[in-house]
Amino acid sequence: MLRFECDYTEGCIPEILDAIKKENHTQLCGYSEDPVCDRARDKIKALCGDCDVDVHFLVGGTQANTTVIASAIRPYQGVISAQPGHINCHETGAIEATGHKVLAIDSENGRLSAAQIRNYCAAHWSDSTHEHIVQPGMVYLSHPAENGTLYSLQELEDIRAACDEWNLTLFVDGARLGYGLAAPCNDVSISDLARLTDVFYIGGTKVGALFGEAVVIRNKQIKKDFRYMIKRQGGMLAKGWLLGVQFETLFEEDRYFAISKKAVAQALRIKEAFEKQGCKFLIESWTNQQFPILHKDTLRKFDEHYTYSVWQQVDDDHIAVRFCTSWATTEEQVDALVKDIGRFV
Amino acid sequence: MLRFECDYTEGCIPEILDAIKKENHTQLCGYSEDPVCDRARDKIKALCGDCDVDVHFLVGGTQANTTVIASAIRPYQGVISAQPGHINCHETGAIEATGHKVLAIDSENGRLSAAQIRNYCAAHWSDSTHEHIVQPGMVYLSHPAENGTLYSLQELEDIRAACDEWNLTLFVDGARLGYGLAAPCNDVSISDLARLTDVFYIGGTKVGALFGEAVVIRNKQIKKDFRYMIKRQGGMLAKGWLLGVQFETLFEEDRYFAISKKAVAQALRIKEAFEKQGCKFLIESWTNQQFPILHKDTLRKFDEHYTYSVWQQVDDDHIAVRFCTSWATTEEQVDALVKDIGRFV
Amino acid sequence: MLRFECDYTEGCIPEILDAIKKENHTQLCGYSEDPVCDRARDKIKALCGDCDVDVHFLVGGTQANTTVIASAIRPYQGVISAQPGHINCHETGAIEATGHKVLAIDSENGRLSAAQIRNYCAAHWSDSTHEHIVQPGMVYLSHPAENGTLYSLQELEDIRAACDEWNLTLFVDGARLGYGLAAPCNDVSISDLARLTDVFYIGGTKVGALFGEAVVIRNKQIKKDFRYMIKRQGGMLAKGWLLGVQFETLFEEDRYFAISKKAVAQALRIKEAFEKQGCKFLIESWTNQQFPILHKDTLRKFDEHYTYSVWQQVDDDHIAVRFCTSWATTEEQVDALVKDIGRFV
Amino acid sequence: MLRFECDYTEGCIPEILDAIKKENHTQLCGYSEDPVCDRARDKIKALCGDCDVDVHFLVGGTQANTTVIASAIRPYQGVISAQPGHINCHETGAIEATGHKVLAIDSENGRLSAAQIRNYCAAHWSDSTHEHIVQPGMVYLSHPAENGTLYSLQELEDIRAACDEWNLTLFVDGARLGYGLAAPCNDVSISDLARLTDVFYIGGTKVGALFGEAVVIRNKQIKKDFRYMIKRQGGMLAKGWLLGVQFETLFEEDRYFAISKKAVAQALRIKEAFEKQGCKFLIESWTNQQFPILHKDTLRKFDEHYTYSVWQQVDDDHIAVRFCTSWATTEEQVDALVKDIGRFV
Repeated sequence: MLRFECDYTEGCIPEILDAIKKENHTQLCGYSEDPVCDRARDKIKALCGDCDVDVHFLVGGTQANTTVIASAIRPYQGVISAQPGHINCHETGAIEATGHKVLAIDSENGRLSAAQIRNYCAAHWSDSTHEHIVQPGMVYLSHPAENGTLYSLQELEDIRAACDEWNLTLFVDGARLGYGLAAPCNDVSISDLARLTDVFYIGGTKVGALFGEAVVIRNKQIKKDFRYMIKRQGGMLAKGWLLGVQFETLFEEDRYFAISKKAVAQALRIKEAFEKQGCKFLIESWTNQQFPILHKDTLRKFDEHYTYSVWQQVDDDHIAVRFCTSWATTEEQVDALVKDIGRFV
Repeated sequence: MLRFECDYTEGCIPEILDAIKKENHTQLCGYSEDPVCDRARDKIKALCGDCDVDVHFLVGGTQANTTVIASAIRPYQGVISAQPGHINCHETGAIEATGHKVLAIDSENGRLSAAQIRNYCAAHWSDSTHEHIVQPGMVYLSHPAENGTLYSLQELEDIRAACDEWNLTLFVDGARLGYGLAAPCNDVSISDLARLTDVFYIGGTKVGALFGEAVVIRNKQIKKDFRYMIKRQGGMLAKGWLLGVQFETLFEEDRYFAISKKAVAQALRIKEAFEKQGCKFLIESWTNQQFPILHKDTLRKFDEHYTYSVWQQVDDDHIAVRFCTSWATTEEQVDALVKDIGRFV
Repeated sequence: MLRFECDYTEGCIPEILDAIKKENHTQLCGYSEDPVCDRARDKIKALCGDCDVDVHFLVGGTQANTTVIASAIRPYQGVISAQPGHINCHETGAIEATGHKVLAIDSENGRLSAAQIRNYCAAHWSDSTHEHIVQPGMVYLSHPAENGTLYSLQELEDIRAACDEWNLTLFVDGARLGYGLAAPCNDVSISDLARLTDVFYIGGTKVGALFGEAVVIRNKQIKKDFRYMIKRQGGMLAKGWLLGVQFETLFEEDRYFAISKKAVAQALRIKEAFEKQGCKFLIESWTNQQFPILHKDTLRKFDEHYTYSVWQQVDDDHIAVRFCTSWATTEEQVDALVKDIGRFV
Repeated sequence: MLRFECDYTEGCIPEILDAIKKENHTQLCGYSEDPVCDRARDKIKALCGDCDVDVHFLVGGTQANTTVIASAIRPYQGVISAQPGHINCHETGAIEATGHKVLAIDSENGRLSAAQIRNYCAAHWSDSTHEHIVQPGMVYLSHPAENGTLYSLQELEDIRAACDEWNLTLFVDGARLGYGLAAPCNDVSISDLARLTDVFYIGGTKVGALFGEAVVIRNKQIKKDFRYMIKRQGGMLAKGWLLGVQFETLFEEDRYFAISKKAVAQALRIKEAFEKQGCKFLIESWTNQQFPILHKDTLRKFDEHYTYSVWQQVDDDHIAVRFCTSWATTEEQVDALVKDIGRFV
């Protein structure tokens, strides 16, 4: 059985295990206050082109999302998200557990636009009963979005402008950031995110690390006492150097970018193979996730050899599914899949 | 200026002030443990046709909603509501402040159906990632709904069946219950609610009292330690007898039903007056709220003499507005409005 | 049976019922945005000697405490309180329900000192693991304290200075403020509280009103969007004018001060009667609460005719109890009690 | 510089890194639903002598504490802890962030007794105002306690009985469980904990793993939907097999017990060395933490070569400090320290 259901079926790039092994018996102080984490922070600050950002390492995405959101907004404020956004759909209410409502905006393509944000805020503030309604305080985006689509630099600039107009914090979830940066059509860089957002994170869990997300904060108010917030939200790792050593390794020799590029290349081979068979897609994606729409009989054939995710029922007979590649996907695995796409579809 | 924007612009029926005055210098123990509250409880139990329910008095609707919801569901569960439901739109996140997500279901008519509830639950439990999604734990309805529409007895029976199938608690918000019971087409009674729901409340604030909602609990698990929950949620009134005395007075001589009937009769006069002018309505309502769609120039004429609520922009020129009557609305006030509807529309 | 167990066994001063009756059929907009509330606000601002404070009316003390605390501090901050403070002992965890820890400091006399606050903060900030500990963010006092004792003006000035040194918000719970202001030894005024605190409240529930607490805010950050917070915490009263009309009436003709003075005078008669019998007290109190220590056999005699609160077991045979007077306590009631103290003790 | 300030200054036992490496390229499904985790669960169930317990793996102690507590108790309930308990002192309010109060009981020796628990509950339930007070719902212990002391089996049996009498859930934090089990005076086993508690956890972070705590649940109500709770509290690790593989390795060939024994043996050498110099201890500890009381001048000598934790100021000149050993502490490191104890003290 070959697994394509998600991008976290394997461990990590071998260089990370080597690096952990190397530090394994070094005595280091706890909670990410060690020199290994500092070196990783320096690498990330350099990529951001901004030494004035703060960098914190967290184990996973739910922690990153809740800690950032609960730090950034006031109790009566909510966070605007596209309806399919991870914080709205796949966190078992972890955001609400911090007392905040997710303000979901319908979105056909999985993304938010500056116009949608402006309309939402204008509607809120012009409502005479607005004190009875959750106040929008933050915008949450993913890049790539939950369905693999991307924001253009221009779109992000527009969203930043909308946020400034309406006094909103801008937060970008980069759980799959590497695969977004590596997409052929992408024109956004890490330094753009550092410049345009109040806070964003660089995903490690899905991009070569065993686990870990690097939160980058530009906004002063969110910076303040963020480590207290990490501890309060259960995200303070005792052996914090484990996070530092992984990000240091990922950003040495541009590994993060190289492995992402490889994963996207393999995904595009899968895309092409489905296209060749005349297959339609739920969304056009240029990142590591592909969403072909397949007949249920076809899927039965794949079931014997492959795992994938069921994404959405399209009609009685057709289902949109997700095939994911990752840094760990090999050319041989994709060879096999491509060949079977030719046979099954 | 005559006010028709909501149903809480006046104080209370005069009999309530008299009753408060009568007890004002009686020494009573605090926190609704007094004989006045017990008498009011007995009256409500009799209406429910069930002595085994528990009755608690709370000052307002937000308190009732948060205390009931936080009592009834587990931390990882959410509460299903029609998208326009009060808990989803008009509580400034008070439900989320208790750590629970409102699971909003699109609803054209403001109501939920048993089929929608079944579909939602089936989708949740068949999703292989359901542990990553808020689990539906409760259904929240209003009777009448936010827009004045009503559930039939059959619809409530179906919803109860759906709740039993999917292990959901059923909670009915009766902030305007009196006006629902008094609607010509209504076939639901208080004893039906006591039989079909796990918990519901009888609204006083909008129906003749200065303030107060009577929460009726049939479900054993919600009954347990509910007074601790009231205190924790900030809803424990020191002089609790003030709530008891109001509900006792409302349910003496069937006042609650009589004043509701009068309010609905006045609302139907307004409905008829708009219809006579060929006016369309956003929703057909038979309760104390009416939602005519008016041209913005027409509204300007009303603005000089009347208050109403802006409900929804219908097109560039037309707005759906709300005119409310209440127990306090006089025949003379409606005479004036009806006359002006004839002139302005 | 004569009730002395607390200061909320009766309704309100008759002038309040008259004032409610007078406004009962006036059409007023909701949620304390009416002219009645504005007049009450003006009276309170005048007492504060500061037009720049914000005044909000809430139904009860738990709501006032949770809304203020959740507004003022960050998620990882806690609120310093004397161990017997109301928020630590008698709110069923309502403060923790907003996500904040109460940082209880042992206190023999029920009060906090500036030195205790300084020591607590110094210990926190000098601890190398302070990010793992709740950060002190606010100081909560009651005036009078839970046990009827008072802060001197000098003590409050010192506490203010300590708060400034350690960047703490100062919050004074004035649920029984009237009885504190009326104590013979008190040298604190409402304008002192307005000057020295970030936020405090003037209690109505225990001092002549049916219910209601007037929150006075000087601190800009707490002012911001406080009405959103009131709604979120379940404290937004639909017919908000009911609160305004009560505070307006209380502060007309200095009624608040007159009724408090009368209540304290009656309490001091009780104090004197116990002293005359050689009775000891748990705490020396000059306010409306008195805490005599009585033999359990003596208490049995009182039980037939009087209610009081059990406060603390002192030894196997002796119990400290609380006798409370209030604005409603009559000279005749205290005559009877004083006479029986002479007989029973 | 040799570090003795805590028991998490190094990574993990080498066998764990080998095991991770071995599985690193195996494709495994996410979120601890893989066969590696199942094997680890089986090992732990065998140690518990009970196949009917549920075993979940979490990354760290704060997550374990908050997830268990928020699962087990009702919103208005609190958790009884010794005053120095980790959840009371060192979680930055993470427990309160779930809405629950920690009910701290003074404790000289860092432990709770059955008598203290009984007294606390008796006082709660006999208080006529108990609905205004947080209800005790759970007892939290650490074994070893925060200061290295241990419960005897008899004490745990008594505490279990007290919990049964007062309807309390019993939860044991075993962050340092290995070092407790290895103490010469210990008579408690993992199967005792499985039998006597509702839920407990076996600490990996401080006992040989890179990170990880294994939560063992006997109580049916806590078992239900616990994985939803893990996700909601931010503790669901994508590559959950990383936790499984560590616990599998720790419990192969009794490694967990062997490494703990070695760590305790080294700690007892340190204890003996201090005793030899006539040094007093804050607490008598037989586990991996030792708390000698040293003169500040003496400490200055250690500062040049060793790290330790400052625990408590004892008098103007003396400070109680903590020296910790761990699975990683070598005989040579302790040789050096023992020698310097002889020279410095």
